[in-house]
Amino acid sequence: MDTNLEVREAARTIDALITPSLLLDRGRLERNIHRLVEHARKLGVVLRPHMKTAKSIDVARHLFPREPGPITVSTIAEAEYFAGHGFRDITYAVGMSPASAIRSMELCRRAGVDLKLLLDTAEQADALADVREATGVAPSVFIELDCDDHRGGLKPDDPKLLEVANRIVAAGANLVGVLAHAGESYGLSTPDALVKAAEDERSATVRAAETLRAHGHACPIVSLGSTPTAHFAENLEGVTELRAGVYMFFDLVQHGVGVCGLDDIAISVLATVIGAKPEKGWVLVDAGWMALSRDRGTANQKVDQGYGVVCDENGRVLEDVIVAQASQEHGILAIRAGSGKSMPELPVGTRVRILPNHACAMAAQHDFYSVVNGEDPEIEARWERIRGW
Amino acid sequence: MDTNLEVREAARTIDALITPSLLLDRGRLERNIHRLVEHARKLGVVLRPHMKTAKSIDVARHLFPREPGPITVSTIAEAEYFAGHGFRDITYAVGMSPASAIRSMELCRRAGVDLKLLLDTAEQADALADVREATGVAPSVFIELDCDDHRGGLKPDDPKLLEVANRIVAAGANLVGVLAHAGESYGLSTPDALVKAAEDERSATVRAAETLRAHGHACPIVSLGSTPTAHFAENLEGVTELRAGVYMFFDLVQHGVGVCGLDDIAISVLATVIGAKPEKGWVLVDAGWMALSRDRGTANQKVDQGYGVVCDENGRVLEDVIVAQASQEHGILAIRAGSGKSMPELPVGTRVRILPNHACAMAAQHDFYSVVNGEDPEIEARWERIRGW
Repeated sequence: MDTNLEVREAARTIDALITPSLLLDRGRLERNIHRLVEHARKLGVVLRPHMKTAKSIDVARHLFPREPGPITVSTIAEAEYFAGHGFRDITYAVGMSPASAIRSMELCRRAGVDLKLLLDTAEQADALADVREATGVAPSVFIELDCDDHRGGLKPDDPKLLEVANRIVAAGANLVGVLAHAGESYGLSTPDALVKAAEDERSATVRAAETLRAHGHACPIVSLGSTPTAHFAENLEGVTELRAGVYMFFDLVQHGVGVCGLDDIAISVLATVIGAKPEKGWVLVDAGWMALSRDRGTANQKVDQGYGVVCDENGRVLEDVIVAQASQEHGILAIRAGSGKSMPELPVGTRVRILPNHACAMAAQHDFYSVVNGEDPEIEARWERIRGW
Repeated sequence: MDTNLEVREAARTIDALITPSLLLDRGRLERNIHRLVEHARKLGVVLRPHMKTAKSIDVARHLFPREPGPITVSTIAEAEYFAGHGFRDITYAVGMSPASAIRSMELCRRAGVDLKLLLDTAEQADALADVREATGVAPSVFIELDCDDHRGGLKPDDPKLLEVANRIVAAGANLVGVLAHAGESYGLSTPDALVKAAEDERSATVRAAETLRAHGHACPIVSLGSTPTAHFAENLEGVTELRAGVYMFFDLVQHGVGVCGLDDIAISVLATVIGAKPEKGWVLVDAGWMALSRDRGTANQKVDQGYGVVCDENGRVLEDVIVAQASQEHGILAIRAGSGKSMPELPVGTRVRILPNHACAMAAQHDFYSVVNGEDPEIEARWERIRGW
């Protein structure tokens, strides 16, 4: 619940916004979307965007201006929300539990959605028989693959792969394919390493699909992706679809990986200066971790961006000014250590924009986007986002 | 917006809850509240709880069972929310900007609230004249003090203290007192150091008040507090009120500081096991940083708790099992390095409770509390919380 919706709704320009507020630059969003659409087209794969970053029907409509297309979600609440807006082809890319599978199949039955599940154990496969019985819907499922020791999933050459596939079929469910996520690519920073990670992700995923096919499983969908590997993939032979989410907005982590420029980052938090400690070189703003998130994803990158890079009110980067510390509703701006610069004049009341370390995490701290375009202070629209599970 | 309110509302026991879900243990909450009420009473000071942790009228009613009392807030949205529920004596403990001061005084005029502001510069003091003119309300303000180099505020012996006080009066505003927050106490871990930090906070604050009084400012309120110093203060002579927030719930950071036991921590996230990587000693759950927050406040403490300590479904700690890694909707449970233990059996579908590093941050990721009591699986109530600015 946001108690100030009226004030915000009335704001026609960013000067009238309460701070902190989440801004979304429409021009950058559209450019980022176009870039990956073109890349997927050249590679000959379907693009299945991950809605976990934006969680907004208005952003989804920019992804699919004609009609709802294939999407990925991270929660069943997202699936329910997008289903309510006409999306029918949805992959829930988090491992299922018996309870989440039942809830998913109830959505399928209720809304005519094709919501595909993910699993990587024989126990989950066996549970599908009960899910089918409880809901009357035969679940469609992916086997999750592990291509880089990141999180869950089976290695493509794990003998359990075939066992799990057979037990999915035995449970009366539909094995629709294999799915990988090269999450370790977030830790890379050179084009060569990213190209290699993308190829490793591809070859692992295709190898698993071929093993399954050699044993009689059709495995029609071969799905992979992460924002870094999606952009650096040079060849996706054998792959049918690409998933990515953070690319719509980009962020400082992706900038550190080398996937985008600072001026591709489409979201920021508008904040107001509320004080200073000149003797320490500090300027205080009214955006702390509640508005920026606690994400410190750049801490282990070559350039540590603190809690975010600071821009002026128009979005122009204030060179080497970062949010060095954050408490709940306070951010402390300081010059990056060793830069030799000095803090620009930022009197109380000055407004700044702060770029996110991690777009998914920053956006999640807010209930809506105030949509702007470039340096124009006009607010073009107010786009809601959802949360919860 | 939570699209599953109906499902959750219908849940009578935690077994029926969608996961991840935020739980609040009422018995622990009441014990924590009682502890600080008693301590404040012995020390002879008013307790002004900080609502930034709970952000819930139901929690506020447990703090003030008879009638609304004095509270602290971290956003004007909180002030508006609690004012709507009858609270009249509110301190907004974040430095003001001209815009936030106008919005605050509009709330005072509209709702008959005494909302006190905070500042530490002559520029902010001067701006109060315009605020008074724009709103017709003379602002009540605190001067923020810096007792431990933590964030904003003036040192008690800074000559600017008197200048700021005089300019507050010259602007036609009311100087109601001085306010300090010993934020550095979160970095301590021994009773002696905490007792000393509390005494330093007291003496700095009282010294500033005496300086102001010696120059004709009445300075009726002498306000200080942080959860660690509030509990370790042995003498608050000269202080009129104590502020603290996280003490209602407590968390692993406070446990590491030495303020509470693990069994005082009143909130947790209920999660479900969704997979495992036995070869790595991992168990995967459906609570990642979206549900737990990205807060890693224990990372620099003697015991690093990862993203949280894991308990069984009834809330009993699984010794040395922590959330070692977190992505958006995945948590990876692992045994604490060097403990020599092995991972307990946690098959897919098993439920666990995860204790927070930082209660304010974990609670902020959720829209409501499912209220339980001890090991009883019954859900006693569903308490909403607010967010936004």
